[in-house]
Amino acid sequence: MDTIAERLHRLSLPPVSKPLGSYVSVKHCGNLVYTSGCLPFDSKGNLITGRMGENLTLAQGQDAAQKSILYVLAVLAQDLGGIESLAKVKSILKITGFMQTTANFFDHPQVLNGASDLLVEIFGEKGKHARAAVGVFTLPKNAAVEIEMVAELEKP
Amino acid sequence: MDTIAERLHRLSLPPVSKPLGSYVSVKHCGNLVYTSGCLPFDSKGNLITGRMGENLTLAQGQDAAQKSILYVLAVLAQDLGGIESLAKVKSILKITGFMQTTANFFDHPQVLNGASDLLVEIFGEKGKHARAAVGVFTLPKNAAVEIEMVAELEKP
Amino acid sequence: MDTIAERLHRLSLPPVSKPLGSYVSVKHCGNLVYTSGCLPFDSKGNLITGRMGENLTLAQGQDAAQKSILYVLAVLAQDLGGIESLAKVKSILKITGFMQTTANFFDHPQVLNGASDLLVEIFGEKGKHARAAVGVFTLPKNAAVEIEMVAELEKP
Repeated sequence: MDTIAERLHRLSLPPVSKPLGSYVSVKHCGNLVYTSGCLPFDSKGNLITGRMGENLTLAQGQDAAQKSILYVLAVLAQDLGGIESLAKVKSILKITGFMQTTANFFDHPQVLNGASDLLVEIFGEKGKHARAAVGVFTLPKNAAVEIEMVAELEKP
Repeated sequence: MDTIAERLHRLSLPPVSKPLGSYVSVKHCGNLVYTSGCLPFDSKGNLITGRMGENLTLAQGQDAAQKSILYVLAVLAQDLGGIESLAKVKSILKITGFMQTTANFFDHPQVLNGASDLLVEIFGEKGKHARAAVGVFTLPKNAAVEIEMVAELEKP
Repeated sequence: MDTIAERLHRLSLPPVSKPLGSYVSVKHCGNLVYTSGCLPFDSKGNLITGRMGENLTLAQGQDAAQKSILYVLAVLAQDLGGIESLAKVKSILKITGFMQTTANFFDHPQVLNGASDLLVEIFGEKGKHARAAVGVFTLPKNAAVEIEMVAELEKP
């Protein structure tokens, strides 16, 4: 079995852009950390856009969810001082997954598993989180998925 | 006046199923507890589906909201060790109520009162919470309502 | 440079109504404070209604976002004991901005900047927050925007 540090080391995190407004990507309160809602970017840096049930398959939705949570981890890594610093995560508390859907798409849990499975693969027990999956009408820049996270860090 | 313990004892909580993915229904951080978004099941264990303004009346929406928060309490009770253990709740901090609506349905507060009223009936002052009520496009498995909760527990 | 107290003093906060149900506008947990989702009221006390991309311009959406966060600050000020008591805010942690949009409106970040910019204008560094911007199908009473907030207060 590899360690969290080894798994983190193999992770390919996307480059992080500046927030689109006067907010920040990560905010701390004691050992709690809140991230902003993050969008999914593919390996070429293009935003994954579209609507589940219309122009995105379930597999594409799951990939978008995975890419969104990778972006969440990327902004957290940047904030904490690099990818290895994600080992300071004591517990993933909660994620909320918003996704664009048609009026008849109801497989939100399977889509969000693309993010949840990755968290558990990386962090093991610590990565198990509470979550809500919701189908919204629109997301910024026509993004397929947006995910926000609340986590607990180890005491410094 | 009956006590919280007596009110809890009379509560009929739904049976709890396993999460639909690699997440958990309840996550702790110190005295804070986060629940996953919970769906409404009727007394026969069937999911309450549909859209406010289309095939659900206001009363049916309120019932769905009540059933969703009962599910939230059921997962919390299971996590804490049984229905009486809900007496450990010090304060309900926040609920978010997502509901499927038509484009012209605007009575979200009345719908969510189905959940808020129950929390105050059971927990009294402690049960008064902040909340947000939102009309979304779709919810998992065509559920009418989804509710998530953040609460504070008594120190052990 | 003026101080936070001076900026707060110039702020014109809307009058606060009672919650539309058995919930509260503000709930505390230690130094954390959660607000309910707040709606935008104009200077005459009328709710700002409508849908981005249909009957609200971007500028009107930004104004609605600003009015929503002013309402958030108004309920918090009322809870803490007056407008000067907002100086007790140590950090704005997270806001969630829900807005009614058409299916093709994707400028959520610009809309929510109406709220984010105000928080930073008032509170400076402390006002920088994590956030999520989401386009929903409907909001209570046809409100254009709904914003909720989590903040940290100074220890008493």
